[in-house]
Amino acid sequence: MKRFEPPQRTLMGPGPSDVHPRVTAALARPTIGHLDPEFVIMMDEIKEGLRSVFQTTNAMTFPISAPGSAGMEACFVNLVEPGDTVVVCQNGAFGGRMKENVERAGGAPVMVTAEWGKPIDCKEVEEVLKATPQAKILAFVHAETSTGVENNAKDLCALARAHDCLSIVDAVTSIAGIPVKVDDWQADAVYAGTQKCLSCPPGLSPVTFSDRALETVKIRKTKVQSWFLDLNLLMGYWEGDGARTYHHTAPVNALYGLHESLVMLFEEGLEASWTRHERMHQALVAGLEAMGLELLVDPQSRLPQLNAVMIPDGVDEARVRQRLLQAYNIEIGAGLGALAGKVWRIGLMGHSARLTNIMACLGALENTLASLQAPIRTGMALSAAEAALD
Amino acid sequence: MKRFEPPQRTLMGPGPSDVHPRVTAALARPTIGHLDPEFVIMMDEIKEGLRSVFQTTNAMTFPISAPGSAGMEACFVNLVEPGDTVVVCQNGAFGGRMKENVERAGGAPVMVTAEWGKPIDCKEVEEVLKATPQAKILAFVHAETSTGVENNAKDLCALARAHDCLSIVDAVTSIAGIPVKVDDWQADAVYAGTQKCLSCPPGLSPVTFSDRALETVKIRKTKVQSWFLDLNLLMGYWEGDGARTYHHTAPVNALYGLHESLVMLFEEGLEASWTRHERMHQALVAGLEAMGLELLVDPQSRLPQLNAVMIPDGVDEARVRQRLLQAYNIEIGAGLGALAGKVWRIGLMGHSARLTNIMACLGALENTLASLQAPIRTGMALSAAEAALD
Repeated sequence: MKRFEPPQRTLMGPGPSDVHPRVTAALARPTIGHLDPEFVIMMDEIKEGLRSVFQTTNAMTFPISAPGSAGMEACFVNLVEPGDTVVVCQNGAFGGRMKENVERAGGAPVMVTAEWGKPIDCKEVEEVLKATPQAKILAFVHAETSTGVENNAKDLCALARAHDCLSIVDAVTSIAGIPVKVDDWQADAVYAGTQKCLSCPPGLSPVTFSDRALETVKIRKTKVQSWFLDLNLLMGYWEGDGARTYHHTAPVNALYGLHESLVMLFEEGLEASWTRHERMHQALVAGLEAMGLELLVDPQSRLPQLNAVMIPDGVDEARVRQRLLQAYNIEIGAGLGALAGKVWRIGLMGHSARLTNIMACLGALENTLASLQAPIRTGMALSAAEAALD
Repeated sequence: MKRFEPPQRTLMGPGPSDVHPRVTAALARPTIGHLDPEFVIMMDEIKEGLRSVFQTTNAMTFPISAPGSAGMEACFVNLVEPGDTVVVCQNGAFGGRMKENVERAGGAPVMVTAEWGKPIDCKEVEEVLKATPQAKILAFVHAETSTGVENNAKDLCALARAHDCLSIVDAVTSIAGIPVKVDDWQADAVYAGTQKCLSCPPGLSPVTFSDRALETVKIRKTKVQSWFLDLNLLMGYWEGDGARTYHHTAPVNALYGLHESLVMLFEEGLEASWTRHERMHQALVAGLEAMGLELLVDPQSRLPQLNAVMIPDGVDEARVRQRLLQAYNIEIGAGLGALAGKVWRIGLMGHSARLTNIMACLGALENTLASLQAPIRTGMALSAAEAALD
């Protein structure tokens, strides 16, 4: 067993995204104790920074000490009690996980589905909520990483309120890439990831809970089934005034990275980050279309940060991804679930959402497809991408 | 919000321990994808390295992507089904958490307790197992971080086998500091932490499961209540031949750190690491005793890596810890639970278990206690510590 030296990749898949050297450098700072007064100051800054990113004043806003999947689980196991009915929207892989989470928490999911690649129909959700008066929660994915579709978070949260439901929102891929406005939407439990548009390594899941959600947790009839994710216990650690109650050992160095990525985000400005993601998306799409490639998702529902590109007929998609990785050190994502073999997923997330990456990706993709005699137009993608930025 | 520069501490509490600069440097290597073929090679090396540390050939040996508390929960939620009886040994804070985990998984705990600071009595465990023929699992903490007591893992695991129970063993603080011999003990589910004697930052929990444990998971009547910790799903990600099934996004950079800490451990040698912990413990104890301080735990049950030191009468213990931190940048731990205000916990874990740290800690403690007119002997601790190493 000897030292592992990872290759230097350009990460344009569904996440992790490229991590800025300032963030990786922060990871390497000296480890201090997780109850150290200096560490507590940093925790408070992270909480305050995450409130800005989530656009909320929720006191209970902090990073779960585990990846986004655990953030999802934290929302469900705290809010769902056995027998509770949860309306779950599913138009991709991550809506399916929500269903799994509801069931494992003893809840009864009622599904509202849409085709993979299409947004959830809010009218259908409204009908289901009307027909399901016992529903306690409406859960949906804001940015479906498996398809590149944006669901209408504002309207869905409003529907939840109108039907006296709590809302659980998956913002793993949306956070910092497109507007996530927790207070404006009156969302109740929102979880995110660090390894997408926050440009941090994977391993943490920022979450935020409204007072209404916390009240629901406090008056539960049953204990939260997860000790590690029990908000009643986490509140004592992340929210304790002065003396924090030890719960678990926080991942100290990973949190240094998140802190630095937040510092960088506010240097740029949150709205500027949203705008950059949108502009880079326009450039990438212009380049792809100039090659003759098509996107899965209609323009009005497209996520700028996750572009599902239709694989041209007759192309061995795995071979293309393999060549991009081996010859160019560029990672793009495969299709997931129903879209396996049908799309590539090109991410433009955080530090990956920049012109350098777009040029490299379009150039490598064009050369690779041309070498495989795929039916594409050559020689026009790069200029089309750049022109889209004017 | 501006860059966070942590102070340079000497970490001699209950964990995290000092992290070697080689390990923090590894954290800062470029992030790559969690399904990248190079990453998969590194995952395999980590698994192989952890098998050596656990002294096992268990195929299912890998790090849970979250701190030790989640490793504990992974063991309980996978092996306990509603209605199962679990005999839980408790002689400190972490045995209490085991009880919580059993209850939250729907199991019925039967407790065997010992005073905080004393080891579990194996005869008592045997009697309880005899009187509880329906027991499915025996769970205990190998190294009680809250007290500094070692429980007899070999005998307890043998008792579990003799009574047809699975064993769940907490090795968070023991791993790499004292012998943990999973195959020799025939232990079934063992979880550890990275931030103690492995000298890695907190955030990961190495676990290992025997084939017998995996068989129990596979034939469960109910789904594992945690999606994130479900071994049936984790097996597809960590054990898949060739094509791994995506489950969650692994904490890539944190795993670089664990990999490097394993490389360093094998450079030293696992047995050499055990010996170093024991020798450093002898030196620290000699120094403390030369000052007139006493340890909580009898010599035959003492953990070398966690030393619970009785606070002399009339000493404001928090003030001492505060002064060590502020004036000397040395962190030692407070007492937890029943021992709050009664002991300090001085850790000698991993990279913290070295003579430099012992000299600094003894010197700082002696000066601090002397300045507070505590009833100690001065001027003899440092030479006594060094003499103990001859």
